[in-house]
Amino acid sequence: MSRCLSTDRMALSRAGALSLAMTAYRLIYTGIRVKNMDESLRFYTEVLGMQVVEKRERTPPTVGEVATLRSRDGNQLLELNWYDEGSRFAPPYVNGEDLDHLGFDVDDIDAALAELAGKGVEVLIRPGEIGGELGWREAFVKDQNGIWVELLQRK
Amino acid sequence: MSRCLSTDRMALSRAGALSLAMTAYRLIYTGIRVKNMDESLRFYTEVLGMQVVEKRERTPPTVGEVATLRSRDGNQLLELNWYDEGSRFAPPYVNGEDLDHLGFDVDDIDAALAELAGKGVEVLIRPGEIGGELGWREAFVKDQNGIWVELLQRK
Repeated sequence: MSRCLSTDRMALSRAGALSLAMTAYRLIYTGIRVKNMDESLRFYTEVLGMQVVEKRERTPPTVGEVATLRSRDGNQLLELNWYDEGSRFAPPYVNGEDLDHLGFDVDDIDAALAELAGKGVEVLIRPGEIGGELGWREAFVKDQNGIWVELLQRK
Repeated sequence: MSRCLSTDRMALSRAGALSLAMTAYRLIYTGIRVKNMDESLRFYTEVLGMQVVEKRERTPPTVGEVATLRSRDGNQLLELNWYDEGSRFAPPYVNGEDLDHLGFDVDDIDAALAELAGKGVEVLIRPGEIGGELGWREAFVKDQNGIWVELLQRK
């Protein structure tokens, strides 16, 4: 946490309690950075069945490429961002803690995990492994970028 | 990239081209990890105007807390995850490259940036700074976790 953001936090505490947002900010997508656009497109479309809703294209201002995906019956937009080596947005790829996970629901988690295993995707946390009483059964895999992907089957 | 994931990638190349997903995987939310639930709830609700659609609650299996948010006229779900120090999901908080940014649209980016500045949020990339011909004007701030938040105004 930088000194600058600490200062921001204090200002936020003073101002935030007094006023709600006047501007209508609307979350419209989550953008992940991918190491290889071909591989990530294949993972999210061929393995996880998403559809390309904004086709892959070059983005000269960022020296990269972008594509936007959505699940067939879903409304969450996932933007894949790739940056070429010369881009100012391409520091070395480090996996962080800020993106906790992407959540996908499935009707039958056992069938899903068998299918994923058949496609070479390693299941890293299996149903029941976390323990505790939840309203769903869940498992975790990672995409090729090291991003945690949760699969959930509601009970 | 671990050796294990490299192997997975090869298996994926062989299998992925032959079969589409049979299971219906549906992306239902993006989960971010937050350092402090009070501060992140305040930022996303009081500053960015999101609404709590699944209220903050303890999650004993992960030794943490969770809350889910949505913009007033949006359908993207943002899950805030906080983990206590004793949680297996609480390695030191590192900002990575995997979460590129969260995208919020606004009607008037200049008004939005003035409002954010008034609440102590520093604007890190201003409209026009990236350059190039885009179909929108955009700016970037960070939340208290160091997560890049893009604001977009369509032209």
